[in-house]
Amino acid sequence: MTTPLRLGIAGLGTVGAGVVKIVQSRANLLAQRSGRPVVITAVSARTRDKDRGVDLSAYDWEDDPVALARRDDVDVLVELMGGSDGPAKAATEAAIASGKDVVTANKAMLAIHGQALAEAAEEAGRVIRFEAAVAGGIPVVKALTEGLAGNSIERVMGVMNGTCNYILTRMEGEGLPYETVFDEANALGYLEADPTLDVGGIDAGHKLALLASIAFGTRVDFAGVELEGIERISIDDIRHAADMGFRIKLLGVAQMTGRGLEQRMSPCLVPASSPLGTLEGPTNMVVLEGDAVGQVFLRGAGAGEGPTASAVMGDVMDIARGFRVSTFGAPAAALEPARAARASAAAPYYLRMELEDRPGALAKVATVLGEAGISIDRMRQYRHTDPTAPVLIVTHKTTRDALDHARAGFAATGVVAGDPVALRIEQV
Amino acid sequence: MTTPLRLGIAGLGTVGAGVVKIVQSRANLLAQRSGRPVVITAVSARTRDKDRGVDLSAYDWEDDPVALARRDDVDVLVELMGGSDGPAKAATEAAIASGKDVVTANKAMLAIHGQALAEAAEEAGRVIRFEAAVAGGIPVVKALTEGLAGNSIERVMGVMNGTCNYILTRMEGEGLPYETVFDEANALGYLEADPTLDVGGIDAGHKLALLASIAFGTRVDFAGVELEGIERISIDDIRHAADMGFRIKLLGVAQMTGRGLEQRMSPCLVPASSPLGTLEGPTNMVVLEGDAVGQVFLRGAGAGEGPTASAVMGDVMDIARGFRVSTFGAPAAALEPARAARASAAAPYYLRMELEDRPGALAKVATVLGEAGISIDRMRQYRHTDPTAPVLIVTHKTTRDALDHARAGFAATGVVAGDPVALRIEQV
Repeated sequence: MTTPLRLGIAGLGTVGAGVVKIVQSRANLLAQRSGRPVVITAVSARTRDKDRGVDLSAYDWEDDPVALARRDDVDVLVELMGGSDGPAKAATEAAIASGKDVVTANKAMLAIHGQALAEAAEEAGRVIRFEAAVAGGIPVVKALTEGLAGNSIERVMGVMNGTCNYILTRMEGEGLPYETVFDEANALGYLEADPTLDVGGIDAGHKLALLASIAFGTRVDFAGVELEGIERISIDDIRHAADMGFRIKLLGVAQMTGRGLEQRMSPCLVPASSPLGTLEGPTNMVVLEGDAVGQVFLRGAGAGEGPTASAVMGDVMDIARGFRVSTFGAPAAALEPARAARASAAAPYYLRMELEDRPGALAKVATVLGEAGISIDRMRQYRHTDPTAPVLIVTHKTTRDALDHARAGFAATGVVAGDPVALRIEQV
Repeated sequence: MTTPLRLGIAGLGTVGAGVVKIVQSRANLLAQRSGRPVVITAVSARTRDKDRGVDLSAYDWEDDPVALARRDDVDVLVELMGGSDGPAKAATEAAIASGKDVVTANKAMLAIHGQALAEAAEEAGRVIRFEAAVAGGIPVVKALTEGLAGNSIERVMGVMNGTCNYILTRMEGEGLPYETVFDEANALGYLEADPTLDVGGIDAGHKLALLASIAFGTRVDFAGVELEGIERISIDDIRHAADMGFRIKLLGVAQMTGRGLEQRMSPCLVPASSPLGTLEGPTNMVVLEGDAVGQVFLRGAGAGEGPTASAVMGDVMDIARGFRVSTFGAPAAALEPARAARASAAAPYYLRMELEDRPGALAKVATVLGEAGISIDRMRQYRHTDPTAPVLIVTHKTTRDALDHARAGFAATGVVAGDPVALRIEQV
């Protein structure tokens, strides 16, 4: 095959510019590896007159990404605009309808419309590839869909939002409060336009939902992800965790149980010396557990121009080589609807609460725990100057139901100010 | 496509039995994921009457693996016999000549005959896949060949022999001498029939040579790998390294420089807290460095029935899905002959030597180093009861040439007993 593979790139932010750079600077390497030239024929973005650090003069310009997707001289739409709906979805649908393959970095679009898009692609005999949507440059979609295709997958875990990990490790490293590091990250451009996508765990939840679909042969079910962000993590939580040999990570876990598919993205305590515990800064790590392979850890940059462009190009090269694989690793029609289940396995929990400084307050809290059947591993009340006293409790293993029971009980005591911070302790 | 993909399995050791188990127990999953049934039609091994824990009665038996490879009802030869020549090579060649694809776990065969086999396969329009040959269940061949295909690869590193890592971490953990742990590992069946393959670094060197070919577009050049085993590592070396915050790993490094392709597999000191430093037991880790993606770390079980069978099945599933890729990621004819170069980058070194207990002995050693242009970071002579005194030296950064110069100088002093242990310190 020496027919060139012709790309139409929609979206020319840092990742789009990164893809252009690779196609321009590595033309020989790409052609040699894939057996055919990989070229760009047309591009599209919101504004044409902007210096993106790359020479786009050789490519046709389309103001409308849908028009780009429909061009006869485009074989693959590279969708790098983002957003779950709007132009990204319209262009993706147009590409499929006009017989093009799609490579996208768009986790939100696939987390929400993945099933419909996968069905449309399969009907049209086209593929949608999305390595860049999950964990940046780490080839985790490929590892899960292809490398571990002989495994029944038992669990998928990971730290998949670099910004949250940056915030948490910087809080710990510098002893800074959440708000300060959040503002820093914002100033550095690390946060999405809507920061809740990052710190609320939504972006990472999208990624987890995509991996879960591949892992368990279920339809993407982002609505079934239990989400909790890192907004309530204080520097005290991080210090207490460190004292006990743990670090706090925004951790995603997906597993299939008899009761259904568990998907949760929430801050957890993990052993500081574990592979996940040692992750610093914006690095991502995904752990894949298969019945044959055991645990496979994949670690790398979770975002940024180079890593994300690398993932996009991996998908492009697969298409150039003629690889065809179902969007989520199995025919879309064969994917089962996911039955969402709450995380059921018992685990120890870290609890931090503010207690009214009244006689008997601590006893009330202890009583609530006892009545919920939760036994206490350690409990500590700190000296304080505020009217409320910070209390830290680590429980022995307990269930979520028991914990929820206890949380309701705390509220009823009248001595616990607000809702306690409750973080699962994962022995990963 | 609903035509079954028909496997002929040659070699029914633990990995072969593991592959049979997966094909039998995961038939629906495999068919759903790949779009076609994956079946076994015939098998071959040295002895027919042996309980392998799997039911082989449904498969035809061939005493001769070459006959198996030529069968009309076999689409893919799964070669799990091992050995660089002999039946493995004969069967692989026969399979290719008769139009079959090959999946193999045979690192020795590919490290030595990879170029010829790749050329034969491409001429015949067949593929040879070998994920199981490198780092067990970790999908590293796939990550490098496909996932990072848009990168110019800058360096490949890794701990790729689980047995050596088991020996080194067990020596450290239990404070046991090399010989004791070696005997233990042998009794546990962890060592190859010829243990030099493991502890001499040959097996890991084979793997490194295969990865280097993919990474740098060069013909496999196992002869160009600088090999050093772990046989001379003493518990004292491990302790000294630990005191300085390092751990000793049998580390492979391959990189392309202006002077040629550097490939070395040798025991090195790495920071104890680095990802490579934290590797315990038989675990493997490979680090891939690309110009776009940065560093990607892959970690998992380096051997064993399940992990290796998982890797074999990943390749089988790719073939079932119709993926075709050149053996080493680029057409065999396009691979450049490798120009082997010695590792050139300067690094600090750890030296341990036995010194005659004579006045002026230490001064002579220090003089040799000074004359070689090597400056000393730290130096320590230990108390001793033997006639010779153990001396430990950590140098500042120096070149291999300077080090070789110094080693020749040590021999000429007449006060250094034997050849010093010299281990590179890698800041990975």
